[in-house]
Amino acid sequence: MKRSVLLLLMALLPAAVFAEESIQPIERPKHLDAAKVELGKQLFFDARLSLSGWISCNSCHNLSRGGTDNLVSSIGHGWAQGPINAPTVLNSGYNVAQFWDGRAADLKAQAGGPIANPGEMASTHELAVTVLQTIPGYVKQFEKVYGKGPVTIDHATDAIAEFERTLVTPDSRFDLWLKGDKRALTAQELAGYELFKVTGCIGCHNGPAVGGGTLQRMGSFNPYKTNNPSLGVAGISGQSSDRFRFKVPILRNIELTAPYFHDGAAKTLEEAVDTMVWVQLNRHFTTTGRDKVVAFLKTLTGKQPDFALPQLPPSGPDTPAPQPFADKPFADN
Amino acid sequence: MKRSVLLLLMALLPAAVFAEESIQPIERPKHLDAAKVELGKQLFFDARLSLSGWISCNSCHNLSRGGTDNLVSSIGHGWAQGPINAPTVLNSGYNVAQFWDGRAADLKAQAGGPIANPGEMASTHELAVTVLQTIPGYVKQFEKVYGKGPVTIDHATDAIAEFERTLVTPDSRFDLWLKGDKRALTAQELAGYELFKVTGCIGCHNGPAVGGGTLQRMGSFNPYKTNNPSLGVAGISGQSSDRFRFKVPILRNIELTAPYFHDGAAKTLEEAVDTMVWVQLNRHFTTTGRDKVVAFLKTLTGKQPDFALPQLPPSGPDTPAPQPFADKPFADN
Repeated sequence: MKRSVLLLLMALLPAAVFAEESIQPIERPKHLDAAKVELGKQLFFDARLSLSGWISCNSCHNLSRGGTDNLVSSIGHGWAQGPINAPTVLNSGYNVAQFWDGRAADLKAQAGGPIANPGEMASTHELAVTVLQTIPGYVKQFEKVYGKGPVTIDHATDAIAEFERTLVTPDSRFDLWLKGDKRALTAQELAGYELFKVTGCIGCHNGPAVGGGTLQRMGSFNPYKTNNPSLGVAGISGQSSDRFRFKVPILRNIELTAPYFHDGAAKTLEEAVDTMVWVQLNRHFTTTGRDKVVAFLKTLTGKQPDFALPQLPPSGPDTPAPQPFADKPFADN
Repeated sequence: MKRSVLLLLMALLPAAVFAEESIQPIERPKHLDAAKVELGKQLFFDARLSLSGWISCNSCHNLSRGGTDNLVSSIGHGWAQGPINAPTVLNSGYNVAQFWDGRAADLKAQAGGPIANPGEMASTHELAVTVLQTIPGYVKQFEKVYGKGPVTIDHATDAIAEFERTLVTPDSRFDLWLKGDKRALTAQELAGYELFKVTGCIGCHNGPAVGGGTLQRMGSFNPYKTNNPSLGVAGISGQSSDRFRFKVPILRNIELTAPYFHDGAAKTLEEAVDTMVWVQLNRHFTTTGRDKVVAFLKTLTGKQPDFALPQLPPSGPDTPAPQPFADKPFADN
């Protein structure tokens, strides 16, 4: 194809251009159920889904901070140390599966996990449902979305998932470039993107979310050393070949989500890029080359969630009291 | 004055009407420094002011929940149990002094306290300033507001206080009634307000915030019994007459801020009203009377904060790492 013809096609058919790249622009979904999104948003911010009444989804997937807590691993009930780095919830609807080991099929299946995990929110689905069922402002919303009848954990996680589908971060500078604004990237950033492609990073970090599409073994060329005990998919399958097989992290907004890797061991993007290119691709970047890739990665920061701080309905007279200090002397609730 | 003349004056001169009542409508302040408010808002939500990187002002003064955590007492660093119920930050600029015992003169003086309290955010002012000074997105904002020069704790708490001044909740139904909309309250609510006045509650709970104006002894008529060890002003003055002398809580949005009292012992408004009228006023309400007062109290819920969820600037390469688990095995930050 002649270059002039290609340029014409690029102007006329942006979709065709994107097909030339392994990364596509990301867009917020339309056609979501607005009432369900609003309910899910409140639930996402509501710490009453935890036993303590103090930990919400947003505590570890903080939407003011790239959808993460920026900790090596998260803090859970009773200040428990989480076993693994909290992945971002931004664009997580694009993940092939949820959790680092992909053990949840989708956002809805994931949402129920932390609520009932004793080291995270430490509630139970039964208690969470009782809490929601006794908050008049929630009952009204559940009935609006799901019809008359008791609140169920299925409805609650469905609403949270619907809200999470809205957490897409469009209009990064890289997306503007993909869509044809060739001035959106600097020469260094563009050179970084070229390196990202030719070195092979894009083999796993591709698609609209720049990752999340597959589960891969960390250390495919050279062993990855860590003192984090997580096994990855092997923890489910029991297969030694699945040891350190993790979901490929989404690279969108990666500038905001340090520290990196399942063990949170890489404090900076520079460190993360150096490590990955060695353990996955058996290569070493020069400092200049690595800095180019990091510059490219920083162009993936898109528009962050931009909704009003949710207001949560007050508890009713029968709402079970939170139990943050069940064994402590002057906490009688 | 003839009733007809009074009604005419009420219509023409709403300010004169308010003077007839001990409670005045509350309004959001104008003339605040917008850039300072924005900076303070980010700091209020930024857990990097804590040692763990996980606790922010909003963790305990949750602006999605009436400016409180709805716990008996708050959770601090390492899951420490706080000694006292977290007071609402809403309308707190109207308090004569800050903290339950009034030990901080104003919002700015208060803001520095939790940051450096080992059982709350567990940082130090030095560390907090180092963190802020190494976050480029903050340095830029501090320079815009306070001019060139290093970030100081004085500037940080000043900005937080400016943001907190915006946390005023106007247009409650009671305010609409005060301003002349006589249909804004039901007959029961109005009867509750009358009881609130004639019984004497209004002696302390008055002014635009319906409280916050004075420090009073809890148990002025009959002793208040609690297993909470807080002494109130006596903890500062050493005077036994100051035992259980606390700042009168603000009653605005009281529907949202259960549990009640400095010890969080009253789970419901009904319980709180019954206790207060006995220990402070040596009276007992009938159930009907108490329900009227509770109905009135629920008319004090005003417009909640309505700003977009803040987005926080990412840490820089030199930002000290959070230390949530300094003594734990696989946390090497």
